[in-house]
Amino acid sequence: MTGTIDRRALDAGHTLVTPLTTTGASTALHTDAYEITMLRAALADGTAAHRATFEVFARRLPAGRRYGVVAGLGRLTEALQEFRFTAGQIAMLRAIGVADDATAAYLAEFAFTGNIDAYREGELYFPYSPVLTVSGTFGECVLLETLVLSILNADSAIATAAARMVTAAAGRPLIEMGSRRTHEEAAVAAARAAYLVGFTATSNLQAGLRHGVPVTGTSGHAFVLAHADERAGFAGQVAALGTGTTLLVDTYDTGAGIRTAIDVAGTDLGAIRIDSGDPAIEAARARTLLDSLDARGTRITVTGDLDEHRIAALADAPVDAFGVGTRLVTGAGAPTAEMIYKLVAIADAPGADAPLRPVAKRSVGKASIGGIKRASRELDDAGHAARERVVATPDLIGRTRPGRLLQVSVVRHGTVLHSPTPEEVRAHHRRAKTELLPRDLDLSPGTPRLTGAPAGRTP
Amino acid sequence: MTGTIDRRALDAGHTLVTPLTTTGASTALHTDAYEITMLRAALADGTAAHRATFEVFARRLPAGRRYGVVAGLGRLTEALQEFRFTAGQIAMLRAIGVADDATAAYLAEFAFTGNIDAYREGELYFPYSPVLTVSGTFGECVLLETLVLSILNADSAIATAAARMVTAAAGRPLIEMGSRRTHEEAAVAAARAAYLVGFTATSNLQAGLRHGVPVTGTSGHAFVLAHADERAGFAGQVAALGTGTTLLVDTYDTGAGIRTAIDVAGTDLGAIRIDSGDPAIEAARARTLLDSLDARGTRITVTGDLDEHRIAALADAPVDAFGVGTRLVTGAGAPTAEMIYKLVAIADAPGADAPLRPVAKRSVGKASIGGIKRASRELDDAGHAARERVVATPDLIGRTRPGRLLQVSVVRHGTVLHSPTPEEVRAHHRRAKTELLPRDLDLSPGTPRLTGAPAGRTP
Repeated sequence: MTGTIDRRALDAGHTLVTPLTTTGASTALHTDAYEITMLRAALADGTAAHRATFEVFARRLPAGRRYGVVAGLGRLTEALQEFRFTAGQIAMLRAIGVADDATAAYLAEFAFTGNIDAYREGELYFPYSPVLTVSGTFGECVLLETLVLSILNADSAIATAAARMVTAAAGRPLIEMGSRRTHEEAAVAAARAAYLVGFTATSNLQAGLRHGVPVTGTSGHAFVLAHADERAGFAGQVAALGTGTTLLVDTYDTGAGIRTAIDVAGTDLGAIRIDSGDPAIEAARARTLLDSLDARGTRITVTGDLDEHRIAALADAPVDAFGVGTRLVTGAGAPTAEMIYKLVAIADAPGADAPLRPVAKRSVGKASIGGIKRASRELDDAGHAARERVVATPDLIGRTRPGRLLQVSVVRHGTVLHSPTPEEVRAHHRRAKTELLPRDLDLSPGTPRLTGAPAGRTP
Repeated sequence: MTGTIDRRALDAGHTLVTPLTTTGASTALHTDAYEITMLRAALADGTAAHRATFEVFARRLPAGRRYGVVAGLGRLTEALQEFRFTAGQIAMLRAIGVADDATAAYLAEFAFTGNIDAYREGELYFPYSPVLTVSGTFGECVLLETLVLSILNADSAIATAAARMVTAAAGRPLIEMGSRRTHEEAAVAAARAAYLVGFTATSNLQAGLRHGVPVTGTSGHAFVLAHADERAGFAGQVAALGTGTTLLVDTYDTGAGIRTAIDVAGTDLGAIRIDSGDPAIEAARARTLLDSLDARGTRITVTGDLDEHRIAALADAPVDAFGVGTRLVTGAGAPTAEMIYKLVAIADAPGADAPLRPVAKRSVGKASIGGIKRASRELDDAGHAARERVVATPDLIGRTRPGRLLQVSVVRHGTVLHSPTPEEVRAHHRRAKTELLPRDLDLSPGTPRLTGAPAGRTP
């Protein structure tokens, strides 16, 4: 269905691609209308100028998940820098009756000047972990709700699913190839999120250009079908891409396809790909056949409806790389992280000196915990995560707390301070994951061992 | 959680917003790397110049679905016009070893010059319906695979879920408010897709600006919490947005919230919104209370984890409008339509006169049906869909066939001929849906009554 690993392109991708290219387009209308109408009402009654803090958290992880992975922070800080309202956008907001004169004037000058603290990208999170905290005036913080949640919910869902696949693959390469099964821009973000938690490469070219993800791909069934026969297709591919390429051998008959592949490419053929049938059976047969043809160095890539469970089931199969598509880009059953953005503190007067008071709603089944929070992960003597320590405080001036501090300063007075490279995110994720116990990494349905809800205060 | 219906903004949205504004950015890298390597090999051996036809279809609908809805065609024709490779993109493709000299030269001049025929946007489809057909040279057709599938799979999944919600709502307004639970650009496409099948409005501002979808929204819990008490919040909102606004009454206690709302806004209050608790119980209580307060014209909007089944369960509840978020943007359990793009015919020589031969792969469980196809929907005497008639033909020159022809000429020689307005798409969808039988519209899990697989030829 899609391409497979090509070490040359992959290595090249690591070094030659410009990372983190933004589109330069305004991101300000990735916003729900009610953020603007709330701003309008808050400007009219003065609340817009009161200091406020909003917190992003998830009340629960997707059913059966034992941990979540934060992703999207890098995309968010880029999008934040393009969060400016253009004249055309403001005219539209006036035309449809959402913005009045005062709101239009505010939006024309708008740039976020507050602070953002957050769990690092690649960090693990649990129910009620205060994943991201936005502080500033009520007016500027409320405007960011939709964009913040869209990015974190989409990217964290993919990263969480991908991390389980990485565990299942147990060190073997994973290639993201799901672009065709999701929105064209969501596909780029998914490729990035999967890479950050340990995927090897993606099929998506835009993810290569924009985010520096290694890109790979060789050939599909259409190429074989476009030729008079399979032999002619293989010959054309090998002539153009070399014997190091990956030949897709299951268009007609996999056994015959493998014999033809080695006959055409020789025993130095880089890899074969199998996209149909039972992968355990097909891979075992293919390995035996390749070895009997003396193509002992030819690798086997399998693709087609793989998820973490199917990958885990191939633990003993002679598979050298996995291509994952649909199940990765749809979050393996959990396409959104369901994080929410809640006001947790507000001042009752304008100005920097007015004290913040904690607030929380009491809606049935949807209550929240007020107050600005500090989070750390306490480790036991073996270095394993023992507790998610989340302390509500009326003030962000911190005291020393036990464990690993989870929040970093991402934005201060509107300026982005924290922009780790993809490699740094990957390294942090690997480190955080080593703090988990085997039972946290178990792929079967379970409940999270840790929680960010203060003891006895789960709403 | 999000805003609710505001008839004034909604009506205004219909007339004042510029529809179909494109971003102007190149869409060419929303492409899998293997499309480029296949092109490279096909340029080298001459196959790139052979006439070819690819077909988009789904082998199955998502589990339990009885029909699918085609969506994304309008976005696809726009994206196609921006499918040009920039110098920077080509440099990247060379740098990572995907493109060679000949491929780079081809891409630099590339514009699609072939034909596209497709089911109309808003049309219904079934397993093996030939939803979209791309004809041209092998080289130009293979390049479009990823972009075509990304758009159709994402948008059709949302439209299919949304159409079921429209059936469940039985004429009551549905507001799309799921932006925060999906990728920020996927959110815009989801709002568009939902509108095309009968949703009333969206919370997403970008969908209003770009696609002309009516936009609506008023206030959330943060606004109430930001004030000294609920009364102050309601007063601020009514002062700014008028008594026709929607007050969110469940931040603390819904009954008390409703009394305060009417006390502040008077009995002309436009609507209340309830976002928590059991919506059937809450709506009934709210209606009784509003009526007892003489606010008989105040409408009730419910939001919060609604899907088609929960909406259907509210058939007898006094709910005036539904807000749907997470379940809509995640496709209500089916976030992708799983359509595929398969070569069905190829010429064995270059040039316009070389005959096309049908091709099909025989992969285990993934076989396809070769040949270019014509599709019509046969109707019985009562006007109900009786059969999906799909006939493979070696040539697109059509003969008269019984039933309603399903394919329209969308692109001819690279020029877009078919650009219906959103209102035309909505009207076509409504018409096509009237051809279904009650059992096709049943929301319980079932199998599609129609299929595009020729009798006796299901692969």
